[in-house]
Amino acid sequence: MKVLLAGEIDAEWRRELAAAMPEATWLDAGEADAALVANPPPGALAGQPRLRLIQSLWAGVDRLLADPTLPAGVPIARMVDPAMSAAMAETALWATLSLHRGFFAYAQAQREAVWRVHAQRRADEVGVLVLGQGEMGRAAAERIAQQGYPVRGWRRSRRHDDTPLPALLADAAIVINLLPLTAETRGLLDAGFFARMAPGSAIVNLGRGAHLVEADLLDALDRGHLRHAVLDVFQTEPLPAVHAFWRHPSVTVLPHAAALTDARSASAGAAANLRAARDGRPLAHRVDRARGY
Amino acid sequence: MKVLLAGEIDAEWRRELAAAMPEATWLDAGEADAALVANPPPGALAGQPRLRLIQSLWAGVDRLLADPTLPAGVPIARMVDPAMSAAMAETALWATLSLHRGFFAYAQAQREAVWRVHAQRRADEVGVLVLGQGEMGRAAAERIAQQGYPVRGWRRSRRHDDTPLPALLADAAIVINLLPLTAETRGLLDAGFFARMAPGSAIVNLGRGAHLVEADLLDALDRGHLRHAVLDVFQTEPLPAVHAFWRHPSVTVLPHAAALTDARSASAGAAANLRAARDGRPLAHRVDRARGY
Repeated sequence: MKVLLAGEIDAEWRRELAAAMPEATWLDAGEADAALVANPPPGALAGQPRLRLIQSLWAGVDRLLADPTLPAGVPIARMVDPAMSAAMAETALWATLSLHRGFFAYAQAQREAVWRVHAQRRADEVGVLVLGQGEMGRAAAERIAQQGYPVRGWRRSRRHDDTPLPALLADAAIVINLLPLTAETRGLLDAGFFARMAPGSAIVNLGRGAHLVEADLLDALDRGHLRHAVLDVFQTEPLPAVHAFWRHPSVTVLPHAAALTDARSASAGAAANLRAARDGRPLAHRVDRARGY
Repeated sequence: MKVLLAGEIDAEWRRELAAAMPEATWLDAGEADAALVANPPPGALAGQPRLRLIQSLWAGVDRLLADPTLPAGVPIARMVDPAMSAAMAETALWATLSLHRGFFAYAQAQREAVWRVHAQRRADEVGVLVLGQGEMGRAAAERIAQQGYPVRGWRRSRRHDDTPLPALLADAAIVINLLPLTAETRGLLDAGFFARMAPGSAIVNLGRGAHLVEADLLDALDRGHLRHAVLDVFQTEPLPAVHAFWRHPSVTVLPHAAALTDARSASAGAAANLRAARDGRPLAHRVDRARGY
């Protein structure tokens, strides 16, 4: 099986992929039976008439789907890596504990050499809302609930008996975004959303930069309506050195590192799907192009 | 029952105590049947001939036992508050996640507006050693193990089949101190201890300031042998504004806030023990004066 590699696939990835699928031939150009992609440049898959699978090494496929030259009719699969879901749940739990127990405020006090104890609430008094109920949203919600926090979940495609978003937002001290980026979720975290959040609550964006209207967040923080934001993803990455987020006392910046894909376990998953495509067996984690994830 | 209140017992505590034990008479001076203490000044319990219980509102009783005027022969009980154990376990888990995933390093990078992703290990690759196997040590170890970290425990009073401390230290990436302060554990975290810790490992002191030889820790950090320290307790509290810890890039300072006693649940526990003393029933959480906790 000839597999085209396109995008950000470094030597470590190539080593792990070769180990996971020694029978494959890996190409950087030329006609292939399948493509393995990681944020490929637009047009990278044009002129490939016989692809049976486009396997992403990334969990999010929003940029991939935005490529107008993406071959039509070829199945696309996204990466669901158990190690990556675990890492994302760790980051969500860390952000929750940090916000609940005031550890960001203590870090700020340390910079000023100020010894000041603030009040302590119990976990069962701190409501957490997780947006997104895919692999990562569910993994995060489960770990946070395990620590005694009352956790609610929300998804974009509501069932008729789901609690509407405004009611969920009003009850949450911490809101964690793990939605996929689609036409319907782009810009969801905007002024109207923040206005519905409880005064003094906090937002954690682990989804995509385009979910968030950055100017609206700065406004909500500066007015004191929101207490803090933990941001892993941004409109422009790397975050420009002049961006206000870097130096804002109520913003914690992570460099899109909330959950890195583990090359070893992800390569095993990719190899399994490539073999399924080769042998005509059902594919795992297929993307619905119309839905966008 | 007349109960003497001695030490740092503010209006909130008095309100919760009165609610938990409406039949008691609360005194600030004069002869009493029992004493409720929170870091009382030395001599506060002198001249009390008929005390049946000295109930501490603090978990640690090292300062109380150091008072040479403490009435001999009176049972002493320390506070074991489930809400406090939960809070301590939260702090230990937060420190573990922060150290494992490099969130302190990302905070430092944010101060320099530097976007730099570092490698990510899985939780099962990060050994955690918890010193102390009392209520808080066990609660912390359990929560950390639940997240997939390999956790070992150590106590000062070893059983014959326990692994010796040097072997445990060599295997741990993160060491968390939750020992009681006794003559035998005072100064345990010194140059010899740090030398046995693995290069690049981290120490979390949630016990007492006197467990730690502060100059030895600074030396181990400055030589790069230890990567980071999270400190909640200090030789002198509040930590003096000129202390090197405040501004050290590898030290996270908390203001003795890892676990605050919850006045409501602790008052209920104290009331139960006072009633047991009054009625001659067995006491909970009695201190062994010879052992020191």
